[in-house]
Amino acid sequence: METVILNGHDLSLEELYKIACDGWRVALDPEAFARLARSREVMVELAHGGKAIYGFNRGVGWNKDRGMDEAALELENQKIIRSHALGAPPYCSDKEVRAMMAIRLNQMLIGASCASDRLAELYRDFLNCGITPQVPRRGSVGEADITTITHIGMAFAGEADVSYRGQVVPAAQAMEAEGISPYCWTLKDAHTVMLSNCQGEALTALLVREAEALTEMSDLVFCLDYEGLNGNIEAMREDVNALRGLPGQITCAARCRKFLEGSYLYEEHPDRALQDPLTFRGGFTITGTVADALEYIKGFLRIQLNSPSDNPCVMPDQGALYVNSNFETTTLAVGVEMLAIALGHLSRAINYRMIKMSGPQFTGLTRFLAPRNGKALGYAQVQDTFSAIDAENRLLITPSSTDFFTVEGDIEDHASNLPLAAAKALHLVDNLYRMVGMEALYAAQAVDLREGVRLGRYTQIAYDTIRAAIPTMDENRAIGRDLEKAYELVRSGRLLEACRTEDKAEQNAVL
Amino acid sequence: METVILNGHDLSLEELYKIACDGWRVALDPEAFARLARSREVMVELAHGGKAIYGFNRGVGWNKDRGMDEAALELENQKIIRSHALGAPPYCSDKEVRAMMAIRLNQMLIGASCASDRLAELYRDFLNCGITPQVPRRGSVGEADITTITHIGMAFAGEADVSYRGQVVPAAQAMEAEGISPYCWTLKDAHTVMLSNCQGEALTALLVREAEALTEMSDLVFCLDYEGLNGNIEAMREDVNALRGLPGQITCAARCRKFLEGSYLYEEHPDRALQDPLTFRGGFTITGTVADALEYIKGFLRIQLNSPSDNPCVMPDQGALYVNSNFETTTLAVGVEMLAIALGHLSRAINYRMIKMSGPQFTGLTRFLAPRNGKALGYAQVQDTFSAIDAENRLLITPSSTDFFTVEGDIEDHASNLPLAAAKALHLVDNLYRMVGMEALYAAQAVDLREGVRLGRYTQIAYDTIRAAIPTMDENRAIGRDLEKAYELVRSGRLLEACRTEDKAEQNAVL
Amino acid sequence: METVILNGHDLSLEELYKIACDGWRVALDPEAFARLARSREVMVELAHGGKAIYGFNRGVGWNKDRGMDEAALELENQKIIRSHALGAPPYCSDKEVRAMMAIRLNQMLIGASCASDRLAELYRDFLNCGITPQVPRRGSVGEADITTITHIGMAFAGEADVSYRGQVVPAAQAMEAEGISPYCWTLKDAHTVMLSNCQGEALTALLVREAEALTEMSDLVFCLDYEGLNGNIEAMREDVNALRGLPGQITCAARCRKFLEGSYLYEEHPDRALQDPLTFRGGFTITGTVADALEYIKGFLRIQLNSPSDNPCVMPDQGALYVNSNFETTTLAVGVEMLAIALGHLSRAINYRMIKMSGPQFTGLTRFLAPRNGKALGYAQVQDTFSAIDAENRLLITPSSTDFFTVEGDIEDHASNLPLAAAKALHLVDNLYRMVGMEALYAAQAVDLREGVRLGRYTQIAYDTIRAAIPTMDENRAIGRDLEKAYELVRSGRLLEACRTEDKAEQNAVL
Amino acid sequence: METVILNGHDLSLEELYKIACDGWRVALDPEAFARLARSREVMVELAHGGKAIYGFNRGVGWNKDRGMDEAALELENQKIIRSHALGAPPYCSDKEVRAMMAIRLNQMLIGASCASDRLAELYRDFLNCGITPQVPRRGSVGEADITTITHIGMAFAGEADVSYRGQVVPAAQAMEAEGISPYCWTLKDAHTVMLSNCQGEALTALLVREAEALTEMSDLVFCLDYEGLNGNIEAMREDVNALRGLPGQITCAARCRKFLEGSYLYEEHPDRALQDPLTFRGGFTITGTVADALEYIKGFLRIQLNSPSDNPCVMPDQGALYVNSNFETTTLAVGVEMLAIALGHLSRAINYRMIKMSGPQFTGLTRFLAPRNGKALGYAQVQDTFSAIDAENRLLITPSSTDFFTVEGDIEDHASNLPLAAAKALHLVDNLYRMVGMEALYAAQAVDLREGVRLGRYTQIAYDTIRAAIPTMDENRAIGRDLEKAYELVRSGRLLEACRTEDKAEQNAVL
Repeated sequence: METVILNGHDLSLEELYKIACDGWRVALDPEAFARLARSREVMVELAHGGKAIYGFNRGVGWNKDRGMDEAALELENQKIIRSHALGAPPYCSDKEVRAMMAIRLNQMLIGASCASDRLAELYRDFLNCGITPQVPRRGSVGEADITTITHIGMAFAGEADVSYRGQVVPAAQAMEAEGISPYCWTLKDAHTVMLSNCQGEALTALLVREAEALTEMSDLVFCLDYEGLNGNIEAMREDVNALRGLPGQITCAARCRKFLEGSYLYEEHPDRALQDPLTFRGGFTITGTVADALEYIKGFLRIQLNSPSDNPCVMPDQGALYVNSNFETTTLAVGVEMLAIALGHLSRAINYRMIKMSGPQFTGLTRFLAPRNGKALGYAQVQDTFSAIDAENRLLITPSSTDFFTVEGDIEDHASNLPLAAAKALHLVDNLYRMVGMEALYAAQAVDLREGVRLGRYTQIAYDTIRAAIPTMDENRAIGRDLEKAYELVRSGRLLEACRTEDKAEQNAVL
Repeated sequence: METVILNGHDLSLEELYKIACDGWRVALDPEAFARLARSREVMVELAHGGKAIYGFNRGVGWNKDRGMDEAALELENQKIIRSHALGAPPYCSDKEVRAMMAIRLNQMLIGASCASDRLAELYRDFLNCGITPQVPRRGSVGEADITTITHIGMAFAGEADVSYRGQVVPAAQAMEAEGISPYCWTLKDAHTVMLSNCQGEALTALLVREAEALTEMSDLVFCLDYEGLNGNIEAMREDVNALRGLPGQITCAARCRKFLEGSYLYEEHPDRALQDPLTFRGGFTITGTVADALEYIKGFLRIQLNSPSDNPCVMPDQGALYVNSNFETTTLAVGVEMLAIALGHLSRAINYRMIKMSGPQFTGLTRFLAPRNGKALGYAQVQDTFSAIDAENRLLITPSSTDFFTVEGDIEDHASNLPLAAAKALHLVDNLYRMVGMEALYAAQAVDLREGVRLGRYTQIAYDTIRAAIPTMDENRAIGRDLEKAYELVRSGRLLEACRTEDKAEQNAVL
Repeated sequence: METVILNGHDLSLEELYKIACDGWRVALDPEAFARLARSREVMVELAHGGKAIYGFNRGVGWNKDRGMDEAALELENQKIIRSHALGAPPYCSDKEVRAMMAIRLNQMLIGASCASDRLAELYRDFLNCGITPQVPRRGSVGEADITTITHIGMAFAGEADVSYRGQVVPAAQAMEAEGISPYCWTLKDAHTVMLSNCQGEALTALLVREAEALTEMSDLVFCLDYEGLNGNIEAMREDVNALRGLPGQITCAARCRKFLEGSYLYEEHPDRALQDPLTFRGGFTITGTVADALEYIKGFLRIQLNSPSDNPCVMPDQGALYVNSNFETTTLAVGVEMLAIALGHLSRAINYRMIKMSGPQFTGLTRFLAPRNGKALGYAQVQDTFSAIDAENRLLITPSSTDFFTVEGDIEDHASNLPLAAAKALHLVDNLYRMVGMEALYAAQAVDLREGVRLGRYTQIAYDTIRAAIPTMDENRAIGRDLEKAYELVRSGRLLEACRTEDKAEQNAVL
Repeated sequence: METVILNGHDLSLEELYKIACDGWRVALDPEAFARLARSREVMVELAHGGKAIYGFNRGVGWNKDRGMDEAALELENQKIIRSHALGAPPYCSDKEVRAMMAIRLNQMLIGASCASDRLAELYRDFLNCGITPQVPRRGSVGEADITTITHIGMAFAGEADVSYRGQVVPAAQAMEAEGISPYCWTLKDAHTVMLSNCQGEALTALLVREAEALTEMSDLVFCLDYEGLNGNIEAMREDVNALRGLPGQITCAARCRKFLEGSYLYEEHPDRALQDPLTFRGGFTITGTVADALEYIKGFLRIQLNSPSDNPCVMPDQGALYVNSNFETTTLAVGVEMLAIALGHLSRAINYRMIKMSGPQFTGLTRFLAPRNGKALGYAQVQDTFSAIDAENRLLITPSSTDFFTVEGDIEDHASNLPLAAAKALHLVDNLYRMVGMEALYAAQAVDLREGVRLGRYTQIAYDTIRAAIPTMDENRAIGRDLEKAYELVRSGRLLEACRTEDKAEQNAVL
């Protein structure tokens, strides 16, 4: 496994995905690591000077006089962790928790957190040894993900369950196996663990990854479907889209032209309509909107992966520590809600395309794309299935970020609900993969019925991959199973992977 | 196990729950069973007379001339079943599927369906042998639950998986073990299997059961919490609520008075406020609204369990068969959506009560109900957890019933989304159990801090049951685990069961 | 003008509409009026005995010792009224405010309010003299409509504007013209004015009236449209709907059969489809769902018009006064939200019908129902208009009743938002009238294109009334104006009125 | 009046506001104007070559052979205009329609539209003569605002009403007064009028302007309110926010520091809390999120003001004409929906601040900020008013962009609902102004009660301006009127204008 060196300043999304999803290790940049000590010095000095520091020498039921006493610090940190590790099931995936730990660790290295060296090392060691705490997915309001990510602290202290080598075991057991001692709390490390939006940021980062892959997959399947329709691709032209100038639309149109290289759609055809339904003619504009929304989110995510959410934060160069609102992540949360709405448009568009493919009005093919041999009924009732899932999607695009109570003695009267917003969007993405899978079935079947048309360079690969897994519907068989196979084909990324393999052979690979 | 005799006319909700949840068997009333034959005669006669009957001698790609040929009938039914069994995971619980089968069977016995005798027997035998088809939970638009419940037909033909003796096995295997032959389709039995709202009705029936139990549990915990507050119960008086006359409010106030029999709240107390916050003073009015909504749903559910949704329907006495819209279940769907909104109010109310219990302003007790010994921090961050779940609840009350596409060649241009509506409300109920569990923790802790107050006859039992499972929070321990235990205590019904046991000893048991 | 005698016990919706919309006068039943005095006696006696009564001898900044002093009472009442009359524009219609005053007055006569005689007389006199206070439509959270209805009290004191003889004038001016002196506050009359849900109840009562009229109008236009389609009305049969047993569906099917008496749809026709799209075949089931929801609301409304929302309430027979939650109106609020969802279904259904009428696929007529002479393009873009309004309707069915803050020093932590819920539903009804107007255009045009078909007894009247206002579209003219005329025709009720006139001639009038 | 020269390429938002709101005139850049002729030549040449061009020699009921005949062209254009000018009241404001005309005209000058010279001149002349067509606000689905903006074409032909010199008059009358002849349609000018998103873009442009002004106003009032609270402004520090790096937050924090220059909040104070409620401590982060969302929208708006939405579009340099999807504006629509959600956060935040200001818990001042002389009750019930308006706001942030039907013979199966999205957000902005007005009352009253504190340089001006219009609440008067005055003060911009006047005197004016 390779290693990403964290320094608090330039963690990229790609590196984060390597750590979270591909098991890469992390290392601490020495210069960044040294900032932790400097930051602690500032805090301790200020505390000695009499400054009240929440979570260190001040807090709920805190005994002021014992603020510097090691035993008292351990006990108070422990009380905080044990009373704040809450939330509700289900639990986050290992990928999600690895992303959380990597983000929190990187943010800590900026030097604004006053973390102990040992705490930073524990994040590193857990990541590198593959010990992944069980973190509830629900229960944070996204104004620091206090209740949920505190379970990571419980695990450091050996008091919670972790995922380790494919099993859920007590943290203490996994730590012993890796030679890591349970953590004895010190300083204000409990606060350092809790005061981060790393759950929301991790879910959002993984959402970005999944939504980007989905969008590309959807473009690919759309192109094959467009070949099934025998549509007019004039609207995909480079010059026509440059004239308009919308970035996402330009990107997606380019991608679609590439998928269709060499297709019969580039040639004239006597049966072709002048103007196709909008969801075909402008299919790439709708994924374009998704792409635009993703760019917005990525901009803010890059900032937040490399900036602190600690309150108070230390400014080591000034020898100062300031109260702040740097844990606010509402821009990111509403950005995610915008992305969900954009995905809602994609949901509508895919379904309207499938409805068109179901009847001879636009295709000139059979009703429900049934085989001409009469041995099967075609894809009639699939429509009920995607209609029902789209209704769920319509629900999932309703925003939640403004729904919260004022809590903690009326002090916490704002929230972003970022974790909920991201979880909803991830659910949407999964539902959309189901729809893309269905569209792949419609598209391949229409191409079959159209007999002998020349497909594009990449849509041909997509077609072959689909048909390798799911034969043409020309016999009386259970269609439900085809749907599940199609979902797997797109959800796993296999369909696009096949195209990428081809693309890599080229010099100017773009996929 | 006992047996419910089905006749198509008087299946009650209570009987349905016995079949679905308690494993009761079913038997077919002979008179009702005889109606099936009469109904088939009418259909066959009409078909011979030249009448076009969708699903029998007419349909998608149907060969009109072969309408009466047994071999053709088998093939066409098979094609319908295999192409309509769709939907998407997750799968319904065994209870839910048992309720579906019982409902469909009972509706069939009305005699409007033209079902074969064998089909009715298969429903009966599957129920009685504990063979439960795997039915996807998603994929029906609730205008007959075509895509999902058709999996029951797949199982009858031995072509799908079933739950049997605690395992998921191929239907054929379970049927062989029970000596049941795979079904050979005839008549229009595929349509009879598909054309029912039994999924939506089953989910709604179980929702009613869960929501009623939740409401009572919530009233019980609310009463204990009110003792924790030392509140003024004047507003619960029988005469005061009779003056108003709202049925749900009257019922819930009566229940609360019973729970509190003998409580110190019935006596004067110097520290008691004149007017408590509305969520305490009127706690029973909010569960009252839930109770009102439940009555509405139950009225329509009782009708639908005993009336046919078949289209066309046979009217045996008239020797006629009519096209109809009797599969419309929109009233029930919007009723379920109203119930969800009412549950949304309960969600807000429970949380506002917990917020009040968290501070000394109304309780006069410690901050976050922390122990006076300073050994633990109290229930501070629980607020984030319930705030996050309430945000989810706020989403779940958004209606979905009007969100659908026009499908099937533009013929199916209305839908109710009843299964989705019911699934959302079931999710809400589960989330609310989590909140009720949390309120139980607050309530018991407040009672502890209040020291020595006399509880009501049933709230004392509730208190004792809570404390038997979860000790007073007076030490430094992981509160997250207490939350899980409290959820189990209410979700399982144990807390209320303890009260019922006491109540049954009485002559006038009301709980 | 005729007079309704109010006694606090049996005010019907029909009487309320007479007072609110038709200018009927009110009189106070002497026995009921006498209850006011008894109720005051009880309160004063209790206060002398030392009982704390909010709004009388207790309250914000209230000087306890001056509780019985007339001058102090006037001042304190005045301060309450002046600081509670808030809210935000726009203002309620005169009908709405008349309904509010009639409801509040009737509820007062139950004898639970401790109102002064003069206060009751002021409500009566304002109603009978046509003096209607300007009440803001927004600003109440529906937990007593405190901020808005307090403007009625401002008007009684001559301190606000009123609508009088068609103009907005200062209350003092109108009162002087009618010989009414400005009110000098006494007792706890400010509370009596404020502590009522009469705004929400009045809006809901008028909503019921409008929604019922809309539903009937929609059924009429649907029937004409069904004749335009040449559809199959088998599903409307009495026996078929009785078999199902859903009350709203039975009512609306009966109404439709009546509208279509004698229509060619009752005869066989070679071109008729076996199964029409669901929105035609089951048009009456969707209005049936609206009718079911209306029954639910009416049941609770009848209770609330004749029961008190005062807190505390006097129980004169017991000589007691109790704190209560009788101002809770959440059941009604969620009922209104259910009605809105049902109306959302109607919105979808009307539009799907118009989409079907726009193309030859189902009608066999021209595209967009354009005249065959080619002189006009038909109703193409009307679809964008109703699609845009339906999007607004989709928004309006989203519930609001659970959205509120905890206010008034954390005491008021529940709300129903009934006024907002009702205002949204009224907006929906108006939007639906617009759609029904459009459907009337489609229907009449299709009948014209179908040439010479025999219409039903009442649909013929509807057709004639439409065509008297808007000629057949067979020339190049501005269609936008036809839309406005059609809206007026249905919104004003004229189209249905024409049918009723015919119906009244019969012995068994049902419309 | 000054003039903006339009050339299709660099129309800025600021110039658009000058034209729309300040009555500036427009002129046509000669080079751009010449592009119209070149564009027409290309189209006519292609048509002669046999190319089918929708709206020119093809269309609904179009007589192909008469495609080039002037009389036929006039008639066909007229039929299109008369049948497409639809929609529903209310009508757009003059500002909005002026913005629409300026946008459409500028987009036309790109040369992709094939407009006649006369058509371009009519837009110019109407703008310059102050003739403003009556355009319905509702009825477009935002996929070109066909139904609504076609009323502009009706006016050009003298067939509709316009706003002219403060009155609504027939277009023909205003045109005659200005010496403009009614337009005789030619070429495909009807399509050129219709095929634009200029309504949605105009509403969005004005929304941006209003939302930016609101955000700044809100920051100003928040700062005064923070002085009323005696809060801790450490979190506003430049370095602290630079450390985080979020652009909107940085901008708004800078603005707040400026407003507070010289305030007592910059000095230490013994009574000040360490950590204020989040809505105070991070007030600028919430307006920061609004600012971030506005930047996103502005980026796309700038592109769209200067790019064509015509379909087909002419590419004059290539001598070609292409079908396209350049009328898609979904990115902008979902951007507006994100802005609405951000405004929803602002709504919650302002209200939570006012709730805090209502009680002594955080302020140490009187309950409801009542005067200490006891002569008035303070701002108690204002809370109900803003709670009710916030419930409306919660509704308005629910997205609508995905709610549409598939229309026009199933061709138009996607929509953006941009006009509805923008109209909802404009409504939100107005509601928020009401809340900002209320917060101004709370803030000024708290400052009064705090007696003698030194305000910031600009908050002092704000305070003085408020108090010049609305005296301190220290007597028994109608508070409702104060609310209306406060609303006017902020809605009109006067409060901020007073600060700007001061600021302009400086060298580095930033406001």
